[in-house]
Amino acid sequence: MRIIVVGAEGDVGRAVCKELGSRHELIRAGRSRGDVTVDIADPQSVAAMYTRTGMVDAVVSTAGEVHFGALCEFTRETFMIGLRNKVMGQINLVLGGFDHVAEGGSFTLTSGVLDRDPIPMGAGAATANGALGGFVVGAAIEMPRRQRINVVSPGLLDVSVPRYGAWFPGHEPVAAGRVGRAFAKSVEGALTGKVIIVG
Amino acid sequence: MRIIVVGAEGDVGRAVCKELGSRHELIRAGRSRGDVTVDIADPQSVAAMYTRTGMVDAVVSTAGEVHFGALCEFTRETFMIGLRNKVMGQINLVLGGFDHVAEGGSFTLTSGVLDRDPIPMGAGAATANGALGGFVVGAAIEMPRRQRINVVSPGLLDVSVPRYGAWFPGHEPVAAGRVGRAFAKSVEGALTGKVIIVG
Repeated sequence: MRIIVVGAEGDVGRAVCKELGSRHELIRAGRSRGDVTVDIADPQSVAAMYTRTGMVDAVVSTAGEVHFGALCEFTRETFMIGLRNKVMGQINLVLGGFDHVAEGGSFTLTSGVLDRDPIPMGAGAATANGALGGFVVGAAIEMPRRQRINVVSPGLLDVSVPRYGAWFPGHEPVAAGRVGRAFAKSVEGALTGKVIIVG
Repeated sequence: MRIIVVGAEGDVGRAVCKELGSRHELIRAGRSRGDVTVDIADPQSVAAMYTRTGMVDAVVSTAGEVHFGALCEFTRETFMIGLRNKVMGQINLVLGGFDHVAEGGSFTLTSGVLDRDPIPMGAGAATANGALGGFVVGAAIEMPRRQRINVVSPGLLDVSVPRYGAWFPGHEPVAAGRVGRAFAKSVEGALTGKVIIVG
């Protein structure tokens, strides 16, 4: 398969590339580097990315920005960062991608653990994760041309512990290899409309 | 208790007022009519509402706009309507309300069935519903002054069937009285961080 991996340089993106790279042709996309660059929050940038890549069999998104902060210090502006970027950005890849993904192809998005196992400072991320779960359930029944859609919801990756572990007290890290395989289950399998939990 | 009910004129709002009105002092809020008016999408309008109401014991929101349309015809703009209004609007009531709700008071938001039982044209609503579920889970652990937060997720109300039933093929309508009691469970009980399903 030809597979676009958006956010290929992140911890989740690297796990995806390691799992899928040996069997498939990957097109690595990132905001500032990669085979193609894309700002997922901008539908025109998403359209330009698909024009450059041509038809693909699958789109994997591990991208999306969200603000972390104390609940009482969130404002509409800081809260909207996650809704505009992590939620709408990944949805932009779907809304803009229908005609660029082959019949029976798939979209796989990324959410995370915080809407089922919350941490302080994480209300914005929890909201974004829940939104993406709702989106794939709602969208799956209307996908054109037998296309599929799922979201992978990983816990804190083992490789992310040095940077983020202190924010996730008591969270059991998940092996990056397991996270990569969850994406393979979505891309190479037949699931649709599922939140694939790796916890 | 003194309770603000935002969206008091809608089908869910009327069910809430019928259930809670006999036991509590209700302040009915709406976009264009009510004891106070408020545009939930605008934090300044939310702040003005709380200045007018003074301290309350509970805030119930049954408000929020979302776009319904075929998945392939959604654009960033139509999709963002639900994220800005149904999601961020209800969250604005929380972020702006901490100092206007009594110690141990509560916020109760409204989502809906479509993120667990989707219908065609409903991807925007499914996304908004999932977002609100994630928000209450994430926010509950950080609420100040023992305040609580939940979201009620009702199926299609029996009283809404004449207008919306055709959009929900095969959905079993739920009695408005049951929906009202779900809000009473949140407001008068002790739950927090829960998605209270009425299905």
